[in-house]
Amino acid sequence: MVELCTNRSAREILHEMAGQVPALDSQWQERAVRHLDGLTKPIGSLGRLEEIAARLVCIQQKEVLDCKNKTIYTLAADHGVSEEGVSAYPKAVTGQMVQNFLTGGAAINVLCRQFGIEVVVVDIGVDGRMDLAPGLVDRKVSDGTHNIARGPAMEEDELAAALRVGVELAAGAAERGGALIGTGEMGIGNTTVASAITAVLTGKPASQVTGMGTGLDPKGVERKIAVIERAIAVNHPNPSDALDILRKVGGFEIAGLTGLILGAAARRLTVVVDGFISTAAAALACAIQPRVGGFLFAAHRSSEPGHGALLELIGQRPLLDLEMRLGEGTGSALAMAVIESAAKLFNEMATFSSAHVSGAVS
Amino acid sequence: MVELCTNRSAREILHEMAGQVPALDSQWQERAVRHLDGLTKPIGSLGRLEEIAARLVCIQQKEVLDCKNKTIYTLAADHGVSEEGVSAYPKAVTGQMVQNFLTGGAAINVLCRQFGIEVVVVDIGVDGRMDLAPGLVDRKVSDGTHNIARGPAMEEDELAAALRVGVELAAGAAERGGALIGTGEMGIGNTTVASAITAVLTGKPASQVTGMGTGLDPKGVERKIAVIERAIAVNHPNPSDALDILRKVGGFEIAGLTGLILGAAARRLTVVVDGFISTAAAALACAIQPRVGGFLFAAHRSSEPGHGALLELIGQRPLLDLEMRLGEGTGSALAMAVIESAAKLFNEMATFSSAHVSGAVS
Repeated sequence: MVELCTNRSAREILHEMAGQVPALDSQWQERAVRHLDGLTKPIGSLGRLEEIAARLVCIQQKEVLDCKNKTIYTLAADHGVSEEGVSAYPKAVTGQMVQNFLTGGAAINVLCRQFGIEVVVVDIGVDGRMDLAPGLVDRKVSDGTHNIARGPAMEEDELAAALRVGVELAAGAAERGGALIGTGEMGIGNTTVASAITAVLTGKPASQVTGMGTGLDPKGVERKIAVIERAIAVNHPNPSDALDILRKVGGFEIAGLTGLILGAAARRLTVVVDGFISTAAAALACAIQPRVGGFLFAAHRSSEPGHGALLELIGQRPLLDLEMRLGEGTGSALAMAVIESAAKLFNEMATFSSAHVSGAVS
Repeated sequence: MVELCTNRSAREILHEMAGQVPALDSQWQERAVRHLDGLTKPIGSLGRLEEIAARLVCIQQKEVLDCKNKTIYTLAADHGVSEEGVSAYPKAVTGQMVQNFLTGGAAINVLCRQFGIEVVVVDIGVDGRMDLAPGLVDRKVSDGTHNIARGPAMEEDELAAALRVGVELAAGAAERGGALIGTGEMGIGNTTVASAITAVLTGKPASQVTGMGTGLDPKGVERKIAVIERAIAVNHPNPSDALDILRKVGGFEIAGLTGLILGAAARRLTVVVDGFISTAAAALACAIQPRVGGFLFAAHRSSEPGHGALLELIGQRPLLDLEMRLGEGTGSALAMAVIESAAKLFNEMATFSSAHVSGAVS
């Protein structure tokens, strides 16, 4: 289906993906609603679960929904901007947390075990060598981005490589027959980058879309805002060019997720978008191809202040609001359980006629 | 621990239960927070999941949380008031849905299978004989309540019997070592009853706390409001006497759930309260003993308009808002998965020191 020549430019890769993203067909929506209305429950009483099921039907074009092989892709990378003191944690934590993912001790591991989700941990740009551990997908583009407060985050060929990682992960998921994937990330400094992307995409001042990240105090948040303002002033990213934004003020994990999301939509996979960082990637993917939005579910409302503006850009209302701000894919994992509920209700509930239950009086 | 003489009055049963509900100990709260802050995540970044875990620690007084033997109790009963045309569905649906629960085709069955929750279906007052099917707990008080628009819903001894069913279910759960239980119900006409209870408990006019239930049109909702106003005018329930409210404008499943909730709190079980009907029972239990609130989690925000006022009475913010209005315990099932996530994260995550992850800089 999709060929990826390694010497292709980022623009060529994404153009090809974008062209393959289908539009959802309203005929399937009607079929879904007809089925839902015959199930043993008052019409519409499962609320958003019915909306979810109907959209899954449109995405999958199936009468029995598929939720097997649930996978969350947690992409990890470092950020040169962390040298500006924009995080409450030292840069070394990115690699340390990758090891934690691989030994199963992180929050994402716990949730994925609970809900039967596979976690794929990808080193797309962590600084330093990871101990080789089973389960790590080594797709390192480089040892982290440059400091966006001083110049562009990455070179053109690095951007192309990072996007390609994501597109290839999506292709692999589709080949393995996975229908439902989730996004996750790890990268000290990446809320700074996501806030910079949000400020450029939305035109809002950095002060409105920047938060505490992993736990900055108010003075730290002020410093972070100033760094983001500097990054935008130094780089002049073009607000209407997603790839220019990614290259200048992005990160490898965000570029990888942008590729993953576009590639997944091109293959009719459903994507559960985690929190603030993941939604920045989703917003860039939607800027490249607005039809992508139809394949996305926003997992949860992050407590990062920039998240709301990004959710508007992707046109999705989050499923959960548990005031989480951890990333890793933790919101995706919880939301995937809800999405699986919607699919199972659609597939497994009895109908009024099969269960001999009387319908509404009127 | 608790003896239940069958000839005891409702007031005696509940007085004894209420006296046994413990207050939560803030020492355990501090221990919980200390443990949570050492786990490999930024402090507080799991948001409400951390609040949930901390409260479970206070309830269970354990350092390793227990979420085994999750059970949802779905109590079914009929309502005399259904003869006033207050529901979109005929009364026969209560019994038909009980059969559907027992054959596994209802929404609650699908969700409980997904999340490994046992459903206990209790006939506490369904009109007519149920086909005996494995799994049905037959605790029928009578073939349904009297019509509250004409007089009290039940006799004193019926109220005592219904409360006793709930208290005994809680005792059974505790004996089997269940730590986490959920409430559910089925009963055509029971949003009418729950709205009447809400109006009396809150002093709000019926028009503000009455909704479409299973799907009434606006004219049907008007008729329902008039019926509720009549029920209150005819019965004069005493707003400061939960048992008077239950007997005059309540229902058998709501009385049973009130007993279940009080009994569970008396035994340090955590109770996940489903939607509107269940929260009416929880509000009555809290009116009898305010300490009950510490043992409750509100599963979700129902789209019934009276639910918000009841949530205020029990002092709980719902965990989910998926615009559901089905009952059966469906909200409890989804919220139980979230609560189990909180417990598993608390139990299973690595600490900064065990995983060799650096702590915050400041």
